[in-house]
Amino acid sequence: MKQINVVVAGPRGKMGQEALKMIANEEQFQLVACIDRKHEGEKISEVTGLRDLDAIIYTDAEVCLNEVDADVLIDLTTPEFGYKHTKLALENGIRPVVGTTGFTPDQLEEVTNLSESKQLGAVIAPNFAVGAVLMMQFSKWAAKHFPDVEIIEKHHDQKLDAPSGTAIKTADLIKEERESHHQGHPDEKETLQSARGADVDGMKIHSVRLPGLVAHQEVIFGGLGQTLTIKHDSLHRESFMSGVKLAATEVMNIDTLVYGLEHLLD
Amino acid sequence: MKQINVVVAGPRGKMGQEALKMIANEEQFQLVACIDRKHEGEKISEVTGLRDLDAIIYTDAEVCLNEVDADVLIDLTTPEFGYKHTKLALENGIRPVVGTTGFTPDQLEEVTNLSESKQLGAVIAPNFAVGAVLMMQFSKWAAKHFPDVEIIEKHHDQKLDAPSGTAIKTADLIKEERESHHQGHPDEKETLQSARGADVDGMKIHSVRLPGLVAHQEVIFGGLGQTLTIKHDSLHRESFMSGVKLAATEVMNIDTLVYGLEHLLD
Amino acid sequence: MKQINVVVAGPRGKMGQEALKMIANEEQFQLVACIDRKHEGEKISEVTGLRDLDAIIYTDAEVCLNEVDADVLIDLTTPEFGYKHTKLALENGIRPVVGTTGFTPDQLEEVTNLSESKQLGAVIAPNFAVGAVLMMQFSKWAAKHFPDVEIIEKHHDQKLDAPSGTAIKTADLIKEERESHHQGHPDEKETLQSARGADVDGMKIHSVRLPGLVAHQEVIFGGLGQTLTIKHDSLHRESFMSGVKLAATEVMNIDTLVYGLEHLLD
Amino acid sequence: MKQINVVVAGPRGKMGQEALKMIANEEQFQLVACIDRKHEGEKISEVTGLRDLDAIIYTDAEVCLNEVDADVLIDLTTPEFGYKHTKLALENGIRPVVGTTGFTPDQLEEVTNLSESKQLGAVIAPNFAVGAVLMMQFSKWAAKHFPDVEIIEKHHDQKLDAPSGTAIKTADLIKEERESHHQGHPDEKETLQSARGADVDGMKIHSVRLPGLVAHQEVIFGGLGQTLTIKHDSLHRESFMSGVKLAATEVMNIDTLVYGLEHLLD
Repeated sequence: MKQINVVVAGPRGKMGQEALKMIANEEQFQLVACIDRKHEGEKISEVTGLRDLDAIIYTDAEVCLNEVDADVLIDLTTPEFGYKHTKLALENGIRPVVGTTGFTPDQLEEVTNLSESKQLGAVIAPNFAVGAVLMMQFSKWAAKHFPDVEIIEKHHDQKLDAPSGTAIKTADLIKEERESHHQGHPDEKETLQSARGADVDGMKIHSVRLPGLVAHQEVIFGGLGQTLTIKHDSLHRESFMSGVKLAATEVMNIDTLVYGLEHLLD
Repeated sequence: MKQINVVVAGPRGKMGQEALKMIANEEQFQLVACIDRKHEGEKISEVTGLRDLDAIIYTDAEVCLNEVDADVLIDLTTPEFGYKHTKLALENGIRPVVGTTGFTPDQLEEVTNLSESKQLGAVIAPNFAVGAVLMMQFSKWAAKHFPDVEIIEKHHDQKLDAPSGTAIKTADLIKEERESHHQGHPDEKETLQSARGADVDGMKIHSVRLPGLVAHQEVIFGGLGQTLTIKHDSLHRESFMSGVKLAATEVMNIDTLVYGLEHLLD
Repeated sequence: MKQINVVVAGPRGKMGQEALKMIANEEQFQLVACIDRKHEGEKISEVTGLRDLDAIIYTDAEVCLNEVDADVLIDLTTPEFGYKHTKLALENGIRPVVGTTGFTPDQLEEVTNLSESKQLGAVIAPNFAVGAVLMMQFSKWAAKHFPDVEIIEKHHDQKLDAPSGTAIKTADLIKEERESHHQGHPDEKETLQSARGADVDGMKIHSVRLPGLVAHQEVIFGGLGQTLTIKHDSLHRESFMSGVKLAATEVMNIDTLVYGLEHLLD
Repeated sequence: MKQINVVVAGPRGKMGQEALKMIANEEQFQLVACIDRKHEGEKISEVTGLRDLDAIIYTDAEVCLNEVDADVLIDLTTPEFGYKHTKLALENGIRPVVGTTGFTPDQLEEVTNLSESKQLGAVIAPNFAVGAVLMMQFSKWAAKHFPDVEIIEKHHDQKLDAPSGTAIKTADLIKEERESHHQGHPDEKETLQSARGADVDGMKIHSVRLPGLVAHQEVIFGGLGQTLTIKHDSLHRESFMSGVKLAATEVMNIDTLVYGLEHLLD
């Protein structure tokens, strides 16, 4: 396997640190530089304590992407920087793999066009957890054959919003595949308010919050005499790294921009 | 094991028919008569098609309990008849096992006193499913050590009420063991209304309704770094018969009235 | 929707009876005849007690498929008859939907060729449970990204063989997508023999047998920091009928033979 | 609540560090000293980096327990030291809470007698995870009513032994409550060797090992038409601290030695 030279933007964030660990463990990747707001010129090993990585930190992304001999930029920063870095990478012949979600439609069109004119692959992925992305794809597929479905998502009790973004995204994908319809008995009655959960197009979503939980979701499809359940349990942030690794590998084999990890999972 | 002579009241109801099957399969029980509103003097085998049972049907409970040589009355009728039959049984030296729930406090006191004065055991049980009763007892116990808990109950989509009676009963038992408190993050926010489910004293209850389900409940306790889950899946009405069998056996060993199967499960 | 005229072969078997119920409930299907070993000329309603179906029973399949105006033959008999009926159906311009599994390669080639020369759709499906078939397809897909996997299948304690046929089939499908490899720690040690279950190409299969269970399987994929689980619970034979319905509908839209329900589930 | 002065032995081990964090977070506990093999006279805050704890480290347990004004010794060392420390604590009027498991019967008798003669409470607990201990107690109870049971335990794929100690302990407890009997169909046949798992007295134990798992166990009881499942998921070592906290609190209220956390959980 040909070695892939990688720049990481956002190396001190939670995701950035996991990405550095993954790169250190995978032979096909070589870290050649980091982009950070601070620590210009320092070695990333000194800043993070990860011994095996001695790439240099740049605070100026333009200089970095211009100077270093890189194949792929892994960007785990914020929407604002993600957009800038994506453009700079493509202009410098480097393929971007971006984990930020906030691209506007105009920005997305712009970088898609840039990717095409340069014939350089690019991946923008709102969710890098391969298991979660597969759960959503399987759910979309199952909904064609099982139109009755409920979602139970469970998280630690420090989570602020309910339902989770993944639950809403799952419900939206299911909506594309089934006709809207009321579920449950037409005369169903809640003797305790809200027992039946949130309603999305007839589907129900239930949010559990307890200490001892991390991030879990199950999608339950019901049909005559049977149920089909798709469940994802995410216990650690490192679960995202299989998706980053996949994207940073596959981006070398494509020459257009791909939005969403699911398009790399066939 | 000494044989126990049994009268069944309500033999043609769903529970009654299961009781007859159970009695036919268990050597220690002998069916000596049935009490029904119809079919005076007919054989129960002819009315129900259950071949091995040739006990006679009485439409007059008083005559029946006076005439036959019975040890136990298994009553699976309605609250109104359950009360009458319980009294008649005790007055005739027969121990009642009653599956109806609607006794008033006065009626309950009356039959309790009657049971004591006659020194005859009696069992009144709102729920004969041993698994469900154990689930509730375990939940009550666990709540002493894990005050954060949520209940998910799942039923077929023809069920009218949400949450189920068992879920509400479970929450009530847990309430006795823990101090009321808000669960989840204090600033938690529902971006979709009702996502967090019904609230009982800070506990959350979630009701799932789908085709392909029967009757299921899980009680999830969360603590630092761990969860403890107690789950009951009931797939068939015959699940109640283990409790009826237990009650009809144990009632012979007690000389007072017991309310609730849990008191026979230690 | 155009009405589909259906002949059912094997109407008194367990699957056949479920098929009759399904046909009676679905407006697009019209039962026009049954093929059975007995009851020549009788009405199927009289033989089975299913009131709304007054189709006539034929004991001679050749006469039946020649005489009646049918679109689809649903065959739920045995391998021997399944093969004969498939040929007869195609020769008479009727599309076969066959639930038996025992076709030899030669027989399969013969009926495939016949289907093509007649340009008539045909479906042969070893498993009509849509949920189980989807579980297997999802598992095959997931195995590309999660090479570590174990299967737990749970059945009632009257089942004779372990593991179940579905578990073995699932493992075989997963094998096609991943490289064989040892799972677990290389120095793993069983302190109680067989604790780690059966081994298929490095994968482990565990068979649970308990009263109160029906037919359940979960396929658990493990990766860094996450697990992905696909679970199917089959509580009743009627679960197969969604697949029969799908096949009997889709067979009208194809002009070749399809082996396996999965090819109709995209 | 009266404050409890605590000495921790083994403060730098994995469990010891969790204990220090727990003590720092709980107002009723005050750390007054640590016992360690190294770091004589240093502050525990400097050695561990846990800021709020400035107790002094002793390398000589005898001196420590003699000099400091302590109520409770929390010992998270090895069997050898655990026994010595238990004796020293009791002789110095300090109540021991010990997490090591290797006491011989003679040693156990000796410290039990010492505890009684001093009228000082003591707790020796092989397992401090309250959830796991409750799971075992519930299983023992359930086995009285559901004699058919299987255990599935799931751990990360770096675990060396199968089945887990907790699974074996659970099976042993269940054995005390039910008669040994063969489970499953008498003519059951494994078409793949070991599919039915390990056998303990007729019970089956299944061990799953996958990346992405931590430490999980479910005990499934099957009866007519129903199953009852008790499940414990332990995601982090901190899960043990609820048990340490409970023991260190309750040991003040007893005047004998208690072996096993279960006796404090009623």
